[in-house]
Amino acid sequence: MKHLTTKIKQLIPSRNLVSAHCDGPCGIYDPASARIAAEAVLSMTKKILALDPNDTSYATLNSMSRYISIKEEQAHLAKTELLVLWTDYFKPNHLEQFPDLHDTFWNAAKLCSAVKVEVNQEKAEELLKVIEKIHGIFWATKDRQVSFYRAS
Amino acid sequence: MKHLTTKIKQLIPSRNLVSAHCDGPCGIYDPASARIAAEAVLSMTKKILALDPNDTSYATLNSMSRYISIKEEQAHLAKTELLVLWTDYFKPNHLEQFPDLHDTFWNAAKLCSAVKVEVNQEKAEELLKVIEKIHGIFWATKDRQVSFYRAS
Amino acid sequence: MKHLTTKIKQLIPSRNLVSAHCDGPCGIYDPASARIAAEAVLSMTKKILALDPNDTSYATLNSMSRYISIKEEQAHLAKTELLVLWTDYFKPNHLEQFPDLHDTFWNAAKLCSAVKVEVNQEKAEELLKVIEKIHGIFWATKDRQVSFYRAS
Amino acid sequence: MKHLTTKIKQLIPSRNLVSAHCDGPCGIYDPASARIAAEAVLSMTKKILALDPNDTSYATLNSMSRYISIKEEQAHLAKTELLVLWTDYFKPNHLEQFPDLHDTFWNAAKLCSAVKVEVNQEKAEELLKVIEKIHGIFWATKDRQVSFYRAS
Amino acid sequence: MKHLTTKIKQLIPSRNLVSAHCDGPCGIYDPASARIAAEAVLSMTKKILALDPNDTSYATLNSMSRYISIKEEQAHLAKTELLVLWTDYFKPNHLEQFPDLHDTFWNAAKLCSAVKVEVNQEKAEELLKVIEKIHGIFWATKDRQVSFYRAS
Amino acid sequence: MKHLTTKIKQLIPSRNLVSAHCDGPCGIYDPASARIAAEAVLSMTKKILALDPNDTSYATLNSMSRYISIKEEQAHLAKTELLVLWTDYFKPNHLEQFPDLHDTFWNAAKLCSAVKVEVNQEKAEELLKVIEKIHGIFWATKDRQVSFYRAS
Repeated sequence: MKHLTTKIKQLIPSRNLVSAHCDGPCGIYDPASARIAAEAVLSMTKKILALDPNDTSYATLNSMSRYISIKEEQAHLAKTELLVLWTDYFKPNHLEQFPDLHDTFWNAAKLCSAVKVEVNQEKAEELLKVIEKIHGIFWATKDRQVSFYRAS
Repeated sequence: MKHLTTKIKQLIPSRNLVSAHCDGPCGIYDPASARIAAEAVLSMTKKILALDPNDTSYATLNSMSRYISIKEEQAHLAKTELLVLWTDYFKPNHLEQFPDLHDTFWNAAKLCSAVKVEVNQEKAEELLKVIEKIHGIFWATKDRQVSFYRAS
Repeated sequence: MKHLTTKIKQLIPSRNLVSAHCDGPCGIYDPASARIAAEAVLSMTKKILALDPNDTSYATLNSMSRYISIKEEQAHLAKTELLVLWTDYFKPNHLEQFPDLHDTFWNAAKLCSAVKVEVNQEKAEELLKVIEKIHGIFWATKDRQVSFYRAS
Repeated sequence: MKHLTTKIKQLIPSRNLVSAHCDGPCGIYDPASARIAAEAVLSMTKKILALDPNDTSYATLNSMSRYISIKEEQAHLAKTELLVLWTDYFKPNHLEQFPDLHDTFWNAAKLCSAVKVEVNQEKAEELLKVIEKIHGIFWATKDRQVSFYRAS
Repeated sequence: MKHLTTKIKQLIPSRNLVSAHCDGPCGIYDPASARIAAEAVLSMTKKILALDPNDTSYATLNSMSRYISIKEEQAHLAKTELLVLWTDYFKPNHLEQFPDLHDTFWNAAKLCSAVKVEVNQEKAEELLKVIEKIHGIFWATKDRQVSFYRAS
Repeated sequence: MKHLTTKIKQLIPSRNLVSAHCDGPCGIYDPASARIAAEAVLSMTKKILALDPNDTSYATLNSMSRYISIKEEQAHLAKTELLVLWTDYFKPNHLEQFPDLHDTFWNAAKLCSAVKVEVNQEKAEELLKVIEKIHGIFWATKDRQVSFYRAS
């Protein structure tokens, strides 16, 4: 019954309903936050791979430990920023427009986990690609043209 | 092409693939964390509604401000705990078994936002119901019987 | 003088006094939170011990660093959750009923620190045992039967 | 090959000692993070001013409290993001190029505090202006053209 | 040379088993941290009481909400700092020397909760008194004379 | 009575406009917070250097990883505490009195980053020296004599 109501609500074109369920009182969303964190993940991954894992100097041990830890933290941040978009910005009408929205975000979130678990430059690049895709979807729903760039 | 590969992977029953993408190195997941936070949201909502909003004593102003703030924090925690399950525990094979998995979690996450935005006892109860449903799904995937209870 | 007042207050059986000093406005306490964190500590300890400490591949270095860090974080969380119970839930009348309450929690908190300092599976198990004991005490004060289980 | 490049880089005495003291191991800086937070501050300020402060309905009390709290948090975040740029990205050679660098950031940080202390739309706009100026300085030091935009 | 000293230290069986269970690897403890937070609680309490609770100007609503929130945060910080001392610094031999150690800290922690729950200048002062007492105990165990002062 | 005092204070036009821009509503500042964190950094640095980097026992790997991580965290905390002083406590009139204020804090903040990046006992000592200098400046602006001490 509730499911039915939900379906009916989704069919009725309503500009009001959308914002009615909005959690983001500030209404400021920007996939740039996720992109910056994902760039940091990619950067840290490269820096880890540039270290000699057999070098046991204090300097290298310190760097290795820090880079892994910053990679972890930034991957977590990227995931958090993405999930804010998925849970707060996107509404049922967007889902109709982009039917693979759920899978796109699930995939992106799982990539955030994968780049923690592994030291994998390819997956870090893939994450940035998915975020670029989400950037496209996001600004399309706002009818705005915002060019995607990387800080590095 | 990648999409195709993903689809094919999802169709091939594979026990290995599942754990291969696992982010949760500890493997300890328990919907009880989300449940405890949601109970706190419900409790705070009731306590807010039990305060007299026209009472301007320091005691009441202090309580009102704290209760709203704790409600916010606990709703956020409930959402975070739920999204850990969705992004890290659940795998493509679970999605086949529970095809409305994405919608269930999207709905639950949006309820977490709704109980922040509003002072709404009904929605706080609804959130607990959804978490009970997720509790059922979760333990079903583990072939375990764990009874759902409330701390309060 | 104040000390005397405190003593006198402790002697007078009063159901009201208890909740009067309660800090937890939500009133939702559940030792399950500490148990989940302690299970994660045990799991990470096992995973660390399953890694080859002489393997200097990026994958193993990454896992070793992450597991130690997650163990640290979860041990800290277990301690925090336990101390919430000790400082906010338990009241002077409970102390009369369970005279070794302070020592039990001090011991539990020190175990949380020990499992950070060491990679010690035995102590991680011991921590879970102490939490099970606290679970028993906690629900006894509420006259409720809640069975203890582990998620893993 | 990459390993070799790294080694060679380490052997070449570099005049650019500046990066040698760099704390940002990822090297990913982008004033967009501060801008997004400052936009949220402006948005929350407007939303607070759009509420009726004499309305004592639960809904309005809840919104008022949340908006003030989110304004606080976002102003803090904007400040943190700005100070990362000042302490980690900018180096003595930049200071020569932009002699009022310290004052610009001090002013910006103090504006972040001012928009917490007050409900002041003008100052929130002023903060965004300062961040736009910092955006200009930042990208100038990198010889890149990145256009400034607002998400809202 | 230092390396040698370390090795020698490790070989000498130490009677001081106490430090063996130490969680604080840095060994830096100072009750000043708790004192600073408690001073902030007292200050915020006074500032709340200096506001007119019937003034519904945006400025006063903003201040009231912030002061309550900062009081909460600082009381929480004071509690955390105190519990670090109790769980990590103090050892069984200290307990013999100061048999009311547990009660002193339990009382202090409960005061931290009380100053959150209430807007109570007397209790905030009492908290500072207890921290001064703990300061005395702490430095006594180190055979050092450190004078207690307040920043405000 | 207090209410009256407050009212009187509000009526007297104050020359001390400085505090009017103060963000720290509690007004409690104490460089001791930064000093304690910097002492922890120094301690962790020494402890890292006392470990044998070629020892691949679980105990040493665990300690190495933890010490680096705690050093990172405490260096970050020291920086944060310093920047609170710079952005919130110090006002333009202090800058006139201490013209190298900006450079002192910039230097101190960069040292906080340096002790993260490196395992450098000399720089950790240097950081404590700068904090002692800031301690001197701070209490001078308050016309108070507070002696600098170290907890360790």
